[in-house]
Amino acid sequence: MRILIFGGDGYLGWPTAMYFSARGHEVHTVDNYLRRRAHQELHTDSLTPILDSLPARADAWRQVTGYRIGVTEGDLCDWPTVERLFQEFQPETIIHYGEQPSAPYSYISREHAVFTQQNNVISTLNALWAMRDLAPNAHLVKLGTMGEYGTPNIDIEEGYITIQHNGREDRLPFPKLPGSWYHASKVHDSTNIHLGCRVWGLRATDLNQGVVYGIETDESKLDPRFATRFDYDEVFGTALNRFCLQAVIGHPLTVYGAGGQTRGYLNILDTLQCVELASVNPPAEGEFRVFNQFTEQFAINELADIVQRAGADSGLEVTIDHVPNPRVEAEHHYYNAKHSHLLDLGLKPHTLSETLVESVFARIQEHKDRVIGDAIMPRTRWRPLDQVPQSISG
Amino acid sequence: MRILIFGGDGYLGWPTAMYFSARGHEVHTVDNYLRRRAHQELHTDSLTPILDSLPARADAWRQVTGYRIGVTEGDLCDWPTVERLFQEFQPETIIHYGEQPSAPYSYISREHAVFTQQNNVISTLNALWAMRDLAPNAHLVKLGTMGEYGTPNIDIEEGYITIQHNGREDRLPFPKLPGSWYHASKVHDSTNIHLGCRVWGLRATDLNQGVVYGIETDESKLDPRFATRFDYDEVFGTALNRFCLQAVIGHPLTVYGAGGQTRGYLNILDTLQCVELASVNPPAEGEFRVFNQFTEQFAINELADIVQRAGADSGLEVTIDHVPNPRVEAEHHYYNAKHSHLLDLGLKPHTLSETLVESVFARIQEHKDRVIGDAIMPRTRWRPLDQVPQSISG
Repeated sequence: MRILIFGGDGYLGWPTAMYFSARGHEVHTVDNYLRRRAHQELHTDSLTPILDSLPARADAWRQVTGYRIGVTEGDLCDWPTVERLFQEFQPETIIHYGEQPSAPYSYISREHAVFTQQNNVISTLNALWAMRDLAPNAHLVKLGTMGEYGTPNIDIEEGYITIQHNGREDRLPFPKLPGSWYHASKVHDSTNIHLGCRVWGLRATDLNQGVVYGIETDESKLDPRFATRFDYDEVFGTALNRFCLQAVIGHPLTVYGAGGQTRGYLNILDTLQCVELASVNPPAEGEFRVFNQFTEQFAINELADIVQRAGADSGLEVTIDHVPNPRVEAEHHYYNAKHSHLLDLGLKPHTLSETLVESVFARIQEHKDRVIGDAIMPRTRWRPLDQVPQSISG
Repeated sequence: MRILIFGGDGYLGWPTAMYFSARGHEVHTVDNYLRRRAHQELHTDSLTPILDSLPARADAWRQVTGYRIGVTEGDLCDWPTVERLFQEFQPETIIHYGEQPSAPYSYISREHAVFTQQNNVISTLNALWAMRDLAPNAHLVKLGTMGEYGTPNIDIEEGYITIQHNGREDRLPFPKLPGSWYHASKVHDSTNIHLGCRVWGLRATDLNQGVVYGIETDESKLDPRFATRFDYDEVFGTALNRFCLQAVIGHPLTVYGAGGQTRGYLNILDTLQCVELASVNPPAEGEFRVFNQFTEQFAINELADIVQRAGADSGLEVTIDHVPNPRVEAEHHYYNAKHSHLLDLGLKPHTLSETLVESVFARIQEHKDRVIGDAIMPRTRWRPLDQVPQSISG
């Protein structure tokens, strides 16, 4: 399969490129280093050292494995770049990770909110028009987020819900309640992609992904130069990864608020499995398919407890702090999100265990000297400090 | 009330400015003449002659009525412009018509789709950030469209629907199925504004407006220089307005496809009433209120019949043509959209009658010599011509 990977330099994009390349697919990656620049702007960095550029990563990959990963350093909001990629590579599958992926980043300022939405919406619009004119049979595998749904008081279905109303019935897009300008940008993308499928007959899969944890994949283990980035800072770090790092460096785990916030989680190994399952089982012409991509639900307090117990096993003394919640979100709420479609396609979940957490500890230990301590505590607030805090209900 | 009107040079924006000004409100308008430039690009024009600029219109208004309408010629995507407006005018109500308003325009090319979404989403995002920091108690009255909902097979509620599911219940945003990049941009706006209300406690009313018809308001009648624009071309004209013009010039009425497409409609006089009712009855802090703003539902075939009958009364021989539908839309479908909230606030509808259509004929007659005949037939297609047409079901 010819697979074009948008955002191929990222936490998930690079492991995805290696994964498909190792399985004999023809892989081409694109990235404009947005994530690297954002870290420079915020004076943060990946815990793991990563090679300087995507071409350097692809070179190392080829030296060790003999496989070639194609690289374009460019911006997906720039139409000539997108057009040339589609013309020259003629993708059969487009895996789209190429977006600004952080909720806190989108709240830093008006400029950051506008940038997030403009970057994410326009890059995806460009992909849809490129598919229409240059690859009408290709399959767009788009990374969305479980955060598009928010925390409704009913079960979350996979993309659609059948509604009975006043004696009639329809299967309609599941209502969305995003909690940040970033999450809203993904809702906009979903709306746009669905339209492209309905009007132009495009094929797309929206993967509403949960929070990913983990540091290592089968490919990343082969050579230190294959490491993917590992972020733990308040802007780009995800909850469990940050807790693991805090445990290792002796920092209290920073639970935001009451800690009842419940979300879907998955191991980075399962991201790769899911993206592969979606890619090798494309939807029909005109179908906008939505999968909820996670394996287990946890409340933040449960994650903190697991990390604390794993710490005890590893001889780490782990304490838990409830810090004022910088976000506006329900801290106690109903949450039950369906996630059967990928299991039906054959997903074999790697569930979270203390053993896995301990293996993450071990990898973090190796790079402990690289930790930037003052990047951990939350600074970016959803609501300006001079506004009276309000709690919202689930 | 201090009322800031985005898009004050437009078909509805200018009559709204006069309406509030005549009632003693302090009115400031902003426009970047996007609509005038788009007409130049497409070699089309308003049927009614309108003054050259917004300052010229405001000058004429002041000469005749003594009332002052403030003017800023500027782009709402330009933050310094928005910031200065909020700082200097300190609006209590922001009425937001300032968007690219045409579905066909958004399908002309990739550039037009990208421009539409960028322009509409970013101008609204700027408004939300300006409210957050400079006018947290102001009320945003945002013009949305009934087209956000599409044509679901269940009754369309006003913005929210209570869903019972697996033994639980929640009141959630009504699912959206927009049919064009333009309509999708309004869905994005609704998502963003809802988020601004939930997170920052902003007040907003989303007016999901039907298709507006009519040419004259109490204020526009006072002086020929107060005329608002009247578009009949395939890109910016709306269905009933175009049919009236076609009747007058002896062009067959161009019904797209089977003509069973049903939508909500309202008289321009009722747009003014609705916007006033929303403005003088602001929502609570943090409330995102949604009204469906139309007074009657019609299938396109019914509109064509009304115009044909009114034509017969006026001595016009009106024929009806079913032309190939350039759009991708259901041509037979269920449609029942609720619209009680504005009636509850006191809206007194002007319903559509043959008498009203005849009065529109009379005004069109006056400017018959200005008609650009080749702007009427549909040229802009939702789907490229080389794609096999598919019909979609309701």
